Amino acid sequence: MDYKEILEGIFEEVKKSAPSGNAASYIPELATVDPDHYGITLLTVDGREHNLGDAGIKFSIQSISKVFSLSYAVSLLGEKVFERVGVEPSGNSFNSIMQLEYEKGIPRNPFINAGALVIADILVTHLKNPETDFLEFVRAISGSPDIISNEKVYLSEKQTGYRNAALINMMKSYGNIYNDIDAVLSFYYMQCSLEMSCRQLAQAFLPYAKLAVPFDYSGVKLTKSQLKRINALMLSNGFYDESGEFAFEVGLPGKSGVGGGIAALHPNHYSVAVWSPRINEKGNSVFGMRTLEMLTTRTEDSIF
Amino acid sequence: MDYKEILEGIFEEVKKSAPSGNAASYIPELATVDPDHYGITLLTVDGREHNLGDAGIKFSIQSISKVFSLSYAVSLLGEKVFERVGVEPSGNSFNSIMQLEYEKGIPRNPFINAGALVIADILVTHLKNPETDFLEFVRAISGSPDIISNEKVYLSEKQTGYRNAALINMMKSYGNIYNDIDAVLSFYYMQCSLEMSCRQLAQAFLPYAKLAVPFDYSGVKLTKSQLKRINALMLSNGFYDESGEFAFEVGLPGKSGVGGGIAALHPNHYSVAVWSPRINEKGNSVFGMRTLEMLTTRTEDSIF
Amino acid sequence: MDYKEILEGIFEEVKKSAPSGNAASYIPELATVDPDHYGITLLTVDGREHNLGDAGIKFSIQSISKVFSLSYAVSLLGEKVFERVGVEPSGNSFNSIMQLEYEKGIPRNPFINAGALVIADILVTHLKNPETDFLEFVRAISGSPDIISNEKVYLSEKQTGYRNAALINMMKSYGNIYNDIDAVLSFYYMQCSLEMSCRQLAQAFLPYAKLAVPFDYSGVKLTKSQLKRINALMLSNGFYDESGEFAFEVGLPGKSGVGGGIAALHPNHYSVAVWSPRINEKGNSVFGMRTLEMLTTRTEDSIF
Amino acid sequence: MDYKEILEGIFEEVKKSAPSGNAASYIPELATVDPDHYGITLLTVDGREHNLGDAGIKFSIQSISKVFSLSYAVSLLGEKVFERVGVEPSGNSFNSIMQLEYEKGIPRNPFINAGALVIADILVTHLKNPETDFLEFVRAISGSPDIISNEKVYLSEKQTGYRNAALINMMKSYGNIYNDIDAVLSFYYMQCSLEMSCRQLAQAFLPYAKLAVPFDYSGVKLTKSQLKRINALMLSNGFYDESGEFAFEVGLPGKSGVGGGIAALHPNHYSVAVWSPRINEKGNSVFGMRTLEMLTTRTEDSIF
Repeated sequence: MDYKEILEGIFEEVKKSAPSGNAASYIPELATVDPDHYGITLLTVDGREHNLGDAGIKFSIQSISKVFSLSYAVSLLGEKVFERVGVEPSGNSFNSIMQLEYEKGIPRNPFINAGALVIADILVTHLKNPETDFLEFVRAISGSPDIISNEKVYLSEKQTGYRNAALINMMKSYGNIYNDIDAVLSFYYMQCSLEMSCRQLAQAFLPYAKLAVPFDYSGVKLTKSQLKRINALMLSNGFYDESGEFAFEVGLPGKSGVGGGIAALHPNHYSVAVWSPRINEKGNSVFGMRTLEMLTTRTEDSIF
Repeated sequence: MDYKEILEGIFEEVKKSAPSGNAASYIPELATVDPDHYGITLLTVDGREHNLGDAGIKFSIQSISKVFSLSYAVSLLGEKVFERVGVEPSGNSFNSIMQLEYEKGIPRNPFINAGALVIADILVTHLKNPETDFLEFVRAISGSPDIISNEKVYLSEKQTGYRNAALINMMKSYGNIYNDIDAVLSFYYMQCSLEMSCRQLAQAFLPYAKLAVPFDYSGVKLTKSQLKRINALMLSNGFYDESGEFAFEVGLPGKSGVGGGIAALHPNHYSVAVWSPRINEKGNSVFGMRTLEMLTTRTEDSIF
Repeated sequence: MDYKEILEGIFEEVKKSAPSGNAASYIPELATVDPDHYGITLLTVDGREHNLGDAGIKFSIQSISKVFSLSYAVSLLGEKVFERVGVEPSGNSFNSIMQLEYEKGIPRNPFINAGALVIADILVTHLKNPETDFLEFVRAISGSPDIISNEKVYLSEKQTGYRNAALINMMKSYGNIYNDIDAVLSFYYMQCSLEMSCRQLAQAFLPYAKLAVPFDYSGVKLTKSQLKRINALMLSNGFYDESGEFAFEVGLPGKSGVGGGIAALHPNHYSVAVWSPRINEKGNSVFGMRTLEMLTTRTEDSIF
Repeated sequence: MDYKEILEGIFEEVKKSAPSGNAASYIPELATVDPDHYGITLLTVDGREHNLGDAGIKFSIQSISKVFSLSYAVSLLGEKVFERVGVEPSGNSFNSIMQLEYEKGIPRNPFINAGALVIADILVTHLKNPETDFLEFVRAISGSPDIISNEKVYLSEKQTGYRNAALINMMKSYGNIYNDIDAVLSFYYMQCSLEMSCRQLAQAFLPYAKLAVPFDYSGVKLTKSQLKRINALMLSNGFYDESGEFAFEVGLPGKSGVGGGIAALHPNHYSVAVWSPRINEKGNSVFGMRTLEMLTTRTEDSIF
């Protein structure tokens, strides 16, 4: 498949299309980004690389980091992870608290905020140096030793994260958070405020597309079966209450972040990362969704 | 891949495993079935066929019929179908009414009961002879002119279907049902009480695995893109609030029915149907789930 | 207390105040009423009577009838009534179905629609001639043998009552409706479509204000304790999800109907009925609420 | 009415009746109380006083304090209080968070925890020395300068109050908390951990029964109309999701606390306080409810 030509066509067309949405405003620091950035990287499992636009500029990966933290937790605990967090779609927005009360503190899946906080709690419990160990894993899997967390974004999230504080206190009241709340929130905001470029993200998602074993990055090891299951979770839950829409329109496992990034993959074919800061009311990048929908339409190739 | 040997191994092992669950009791007629039936059919896209156990015995397909009715509606109206029913997982059980009120009469997806009733309403509006036209399509796609609806099951559902009556009246109050309620319910119970064997079901799902176009059965035409989207809907929503679990453990698009049947498919590889009447509290066949989980584990091959 | 002068002052002031709201439109026949009617009747327990404006014109009492049907059910079954319906406020609109699912078919109280349908089911079970027996009770307690149900309103409700059909089917699915659904709905629509004037309603509510025993109308007998409890239920639940507001602003037990009527009472002091068809979005008469709020403010006398 | 004899009869009978429930355990310090305490004080508006059992022993008043904090807020802001908190029953347990999300951070009423936190936020904003000003008011209205907060209970609540932290963070995310979260929680836990005896509580509630104006305690002034409205709020919402039951069975405005205390009043007749630490699953004192139900049954006198 000649992805290069297809991607160039999509890039030009999307770039010219009417912008909609705005950069995330609920984290003040994210609102300072130029909303008209747009970049794409696609890496094939057989080694081709295509970069377009702002593919090399770093941005706040936000919830895309949940794929890395889940991977780390699964490598540590295996199936036991899913005793504290489910695998079902939530049918609600990414920070809803209703279902959490209904289901007594067990989040529906690891990609909604509540679930990611449980995963963060697991890492805080089991890692010797949670923040640096996690950072080493992300650097290793993306092959980029220069990845760091953005201090301003980190503080901005911490100062305004009342909804996350509500979620974690709720779960603590049900006994599903083991560590000190501030320690877990601190770790969580650190992982969310990591900055990566499309190239680095596509690189980091390539192993999920390759399903190659041994998967071993900085000591984080996953089996083929575990990789497939993480891919399945991305497909079912990677886009909050737009996950069904993404599966329906795009048909690839992926994960979005409110920083405007989306990383996705076609097993055995390619990984792809898109970035454009304007997000819709569901929290997903407008150009990002459009780009990936056109990609699987024009290649006539999704996982289905 | 030598599916024959793998399937035989699974069949023997599952057959010997501890049974759990019971045949569906909320439709009295379904409770009269011998709960210990167990059959499998797998058809590969290149023409191989494997039948095990009770693969040739007909059973009540129940909600598996929703794949056929959705296909018919999409062939008639295309994208417009999704103005009246969503594509997102519901996060609730198959007959929940809460979300319907919250979302003002628009069902979350076409595979929960409320959504299937909207699809039935569409068919009642647009087909000249809804029941016979639908039946002809199912006969054509399965290559079995002898498929009929079971009158006793039909009446049993009609007499006890208070929950479905609640759902459809609710939607009618929101203006999302256009026809007479009894006419729509009658059509819906007819489609649910169709009887098919594993062989017939696997045959009927083979075109969704083949993604072959032209798809044209008794005048019902779908494009490749539409087939892929129906497959995506099955993956996200085919197993009610166990859909995430199925994607996670099995990794195939599929649809279950409370009659104990499950039909699933691996795009470009095979279609598969399993039947065993004992269902779990989520309404999915216990042996059926076990069988398919073992299948993708042993073949090390799912869509992810 | 000189109610006459106070009422005349209120009547003139409210009549001149800006109208808001509209006559109920969800029952088409109710929308045909002149929305600018306005009448008041106040009857003191010591025999004084004050009528203002359209106090003698009959209107559709709608949900006010739920006080009469509850009274009848309590006279028949006593405390047992409350095994099938609760006494707690619902916190939701009068025809919400969510809580019904959450609480497995047991309505929160007898004054929301679901609860009144259970009460109707009780009367259909226990009365020899449900409709005429009920009518005789209402005629006896109001001292008006000419009260009848409006056939057009009855049919209008029946034809458009999808929400009520949803509620009753839901409860039937949980086993909390014993009779044929159509028989119960028919009885319910009959009771709702009774027509009474303010004078007749105030007369019918006077025994609840007098708390006089023996209470015995057409064989319907209540103890003093039962009367007080019905009054308590009116205060907690008589105005749907505006019940707290009514207790807070007015401070009297009462019951409203979407026909624009409100009947209320001050134990040991008076009964009062107001009618004005324009209702707010909660289903309560705008002028009716205003009138009663001014009444207890100016008399400086509520139950609190 | 000879309350003395009636109360003595009730006291003996209840004391001998089978105990049920346990002292609240979710605040560890409360669980250390002897669960078999039982005391009653009734004060008539004309000056009679009746004490039984442990009427003079102090206990943790917990949520009963919400009546005092609401009174203070109303004296400061009048009607404006109800722009940030509603007056409707919640239909949920006292610390539910669901409705808060559904209603965008506006608590249903000032007596559920979320509402009391908003009231605390108001006091923290408007009082020069929130904690001491509040304490002075409670001391003044109860005529007891020795009332203090229990430090151990205060710390116990603070250390385990994850649910309250969830509620207040949730409201902060909706902009309905103006002050620092820790400052508001600190004030709230102080008010909840006040210790008073039945005698002191009955004294503090007597002004609400007397409806006497001027109401002026330590500068906290309320009009007669405001007192009546606070009484109305107690009736509708004083017992969480057992408020309807209390109105139905007892028929008095009142407020309970998980320390096992209940304070109630009969306007123009008496105030009454009961204490017995064993609470039911709704958080209300079992003996307390029983006592008050018998009181209004035997006196044949409630507000209805």
